[in-house]
Amino acid sequence: MTEQTDAQLRDYAPHDGSDASTSLDDDNRLLPGFVSQVCNALDEGEEETVYDLVEPLHPADIADLFELVQREYRGPLARAITDLLGADVLTELNDYVRDDVIDALPAAQVAELAGQLETDDAVAIIEEMEEADQRAVLAELEPADRAAIVDALSFPEESAGRLMQRDLVAVPEHMNVGQLIDYLREHADLTTEFWEIFIVDPQHRPVGTCQLSWILRTPRHIALADVMKRDQTLIPTDMDQEEVALRFQKYALISAAVIDGAGRLVGQITVDDIIHIVQEEAGEDILRMSGAGEGDINEPIRQSYSSRVRWLIANLGTALVASSIIALFGGAIEQLVALAVLMPIVASVGGNAGTQTMAVAVRALAMNQLTESNTRRIVARELRIAVLNGATVAVLTGIGTALVFADVMLGGVIAVAILVNIIIAGMAGVIVPVTLDRLEQDPAVASSVFVTMITDSMGFLAFLGLAVASGLASF
Amino acid sequence: MTEQTDAQLRDYAPHDGSDASTSLDDDNRLLPGFVSQVCNALDEGEEETVYDLVEPLHPADIADLFELVQREYRGPLARAITDLLGADVLTELNDYVRDDVIDALPAAQVAELAGQLETDDAVAIIEEMEEADQRAVLAELEPADRAAIVDALSFPEESAGRLMQRDLVAVPEHMNVGQLIDYLREHADLTTEFWEIFIVDPQHRPVGTCQLSWILRTPRHIALADVMKRDQTLIPTDMDQEEVALRFQKYALISAAVIDGAGRLVGQITVDDIIHIVQEEAGEDILRMSGAGEGDINEPIRQSYSSRVRWLIANLGTALVASSIIALFGGAIEQLVALAVLMPIVASVGGNAGTQTMAVAVRALAMNQLTESNTRRIVARELRIAVLNGATVAVLTGIGTALVFADVMLGGVIAVAILVNIIIAGMAGVIVPVTLDRLEQDPAVASSVFVTMITDSMGFLAFLGLAVASGLASF
Repeated sequence: MTEQTDAQLRDYAPHDGSDASTSLDDDNRLLPGFVSQVCNALDEGEEETVYDLVEPLHPADIADLFELVQREYRGPLARAITDLLGADVLTELNDYVRDDVIDALPAAQVAELAGQLETDDAVAIIEEMEEADQRAVLAELEPADRAAIVDALSFPEESAGRLMQRDLVAVPEHMNVGQLIDYLREHADLTTEFWEIFIVDPQHRPVGTCQLSWILRTPRHIALADVMKRDQTLIPTDMDQEEVALRFQKYALISAAVIDGAGRLVGQITVDDIIHIVQEEAGEDILRMSGAGEGDINEPIRQSYSSRVRWLIANLGTALVASSIIALFGGAIEQLVALAVLMPIVASVGGNAGTQTMAVAVRALAMNQLTESNTRRIVARELRIAVLNGATVAVLTGIGTALVFADVMLGGVIAVAILVNIIIAGMAGVIVPVTLDRLEQDPAVASSVFVTMITDSMGFLAFLGLAVASGLASF
Repeated sequence: MTEQTDAQLRDYAPHDGSDASTSLDDDNRLLPGFVSQVCNALDEGEEETVYDLVEPLHPADIADLFELVQREYRGPLARAITDLLGADVLTELNDYVRDDVIDALPAAQVAELAGQLETDDAVAIIEEMEEADQRAVLAELEPADRAAIVDALSFPEESAGRLMQRDLVAVPEHMNVGQLIDYLREHADLTTEFWEIFIVDPQHRPVGTCQLSWILRTPRHIALADVMKRDQTLIPTDMDQEEVALRFQKYALISAAVIDGAGRLVGQITVDDIIHIVQEEAGEDILRMSGAGEGDINEPIRQSYSSRVRWLIANLGTALVASSIIALFGGAIEQLVALAVLMPIVASVGGNAGTQTMAVAVRALAMNQLTESNTRRIVARELRIAVLNGATVAVLTGIGTALVFADVMLGGVIAVAILVNIIIAGMAGVIVPVTLDRLEQDPAVASSVFVTMITDSMGFLAFLGLAVASGLASF
């Protein structure tokens, strides 16, 4: 595939953030005035004005523009600036927004665009399409491009096989630096998107990697085998993209060889694709922990509703457990209504403490920092923090309550209940996600429901139970 | 500085994940058995055994080992394997763990290690040290290295100036490809860590960038000015690292030129440093939103305590507001204890709905997706989702309550209260973070407290207020 698209060959003004551009603000975001100018022109049907406005933008900013305008403008905008819709714009688009744009274009044009893309980017576009549209686009592609894409689609979603690009530079071990440079100059059809070259044995298995800077620094007669680094991170095609991203971070990689089951080099993954995955995966946890599904602001409302309402209903279930515990103490509350006034405090600080610990544990698990080797140590650490936090909050609340209600016993009861609940919260906050992780479940997804149920129930149980036990009220 | 450290020149076995290594598990994490073997040898004082065990590990795994062992083992481990402590190990270490390791080594050795590092990595180590230690290490450094580090330390923390490395390749416009290659071969002291070449004008201002692959593909007589890309992303030294990371993602950069106030090229930032920042910044939001401070499992307990207890006390404050509202309705609760049993449900689902929306808004703000141009649209979107979610949960809870308590009016009251609270939660969940962002505050840090206060208070107020208004109970 040819990576040098029109968009890449065009020159743009430097964008250094301090640049007083008319379309970007200080934070490099499109100005609202510019966006509404484009929308107004689209309303008036002035396609040429739209084109002239958008033409000076960098492809990444054109992508932003599509995301910022309302959905109904995306089709007309795509048709007005079709010439500017290079591969660079498409790869930067949010998945949902890209669907809107692609839907507005005829299959032949989508195929032409897909042909310009690297395999992984073309796959990202085509995998999201309806099957009929997929077939239409595939039929329009060049046979070699089509084969590469069909092959990529045969790997599981979010695997290295989907992520890799097939275009790479691989040369045999016996070459020297001069031969390599000549080979690169003579083969105009080779990709330009490579940062390292791979050295392979006769079975096409990678044996080493060479940074381009090493090649440029080395005299022509030196053998590649003497410059290359034999230490390589090889990525099997079926490795999950999250795992691939962790390898890139751990070993500070710029690119990595992807190998098939027989150890043969079949593709490469480059860091520019990884950085998006790191952003996504690291950011996903906050959305999962709060039960917000994908949490994409461009997601259709129906989908957002269905992923969120599920967790609200689960939350309703856990709230019912807490309610049943309160119901047990109905008599006590009737006798001493202060219990009803104070009980949410115990549950609330417990829930907060649990969420703190859980966030820490979920992050540490995601980054492979919390493993079997140090779980006991981290649990002990969280216990100590919980005792300190619990004692502080318990003393504050206990004294406050004793003063406001002129009841020392009530102050003592709430203090002990808070201490107990924060300790339970701290333990649950680390043990629940670690257990889910051991069971090969995503700790970010389900931990919240369990931890909240535990801190709510235990908060009410400890407070109301202690109130009864201490004789403040009876069942 | 010389980047080719001993550690980089050594060869390791390929680590492809499927490799049945004796020290790593399937997920590329060190096996607990291996870690305790090392600890046992340290207990026995068998430094040679420790060395032999650790020697075959990749530097990134040695870094992991330091993080996995208990704190008291870190000093002895550092002393046992000092030879293996290359720059690669140090740069991969967690900040807190690195402090433990550095503390165990004499200043001269730290200086030697710092001299091997790229400026940005050396700065990362030295900026964390006590002032006296800093001076001791700086005194041991080569003058050129010392000057570079002192200069870097003059920039604000987390700015591009701190992040950049000074070693780069910059050449004048009039060079051709052949001259550049000869220049690179002749200057053995140049860095090997570069992926692009910067072309500068006589005032040393960057005018273009050249990927190394383009240079390797181009005949010797072609002028660099004809191969280079004039479109550049220039990073001012004072740009915040989060902003730098967003530019790298938006424009898919491998490296970028850093310029001073006069537009002169003073350094470069490479993507391997950015990927850590993306991971950190994207992961930070979950920790900030839950009030867990830095949330690093290696942070000293005292620090974790102080950052977390602050938020628990803030949470206590918001819980008091909710309690005061309940106190207003003390009489009503005495008359109908079911109100006390049910009221936490209303607050709980409201809180959950608020957190969902807030997580979505915080992510979108962090990624520059939620800007002035589309705020109204996103608020409208969240309102529609809130109405759908609220209606669903309200109907379920209303019917359930009416049946369990055999009281249709009570069912109606809780249903309306839940619908109202989820709608308020949805609006607060997006408006609070957006407002904080407009006020230049970090929306992840403070949103939770406000949103929880709103959903708790409004939940109790709506439910208890409606119960009184509908005549179920009186003040």
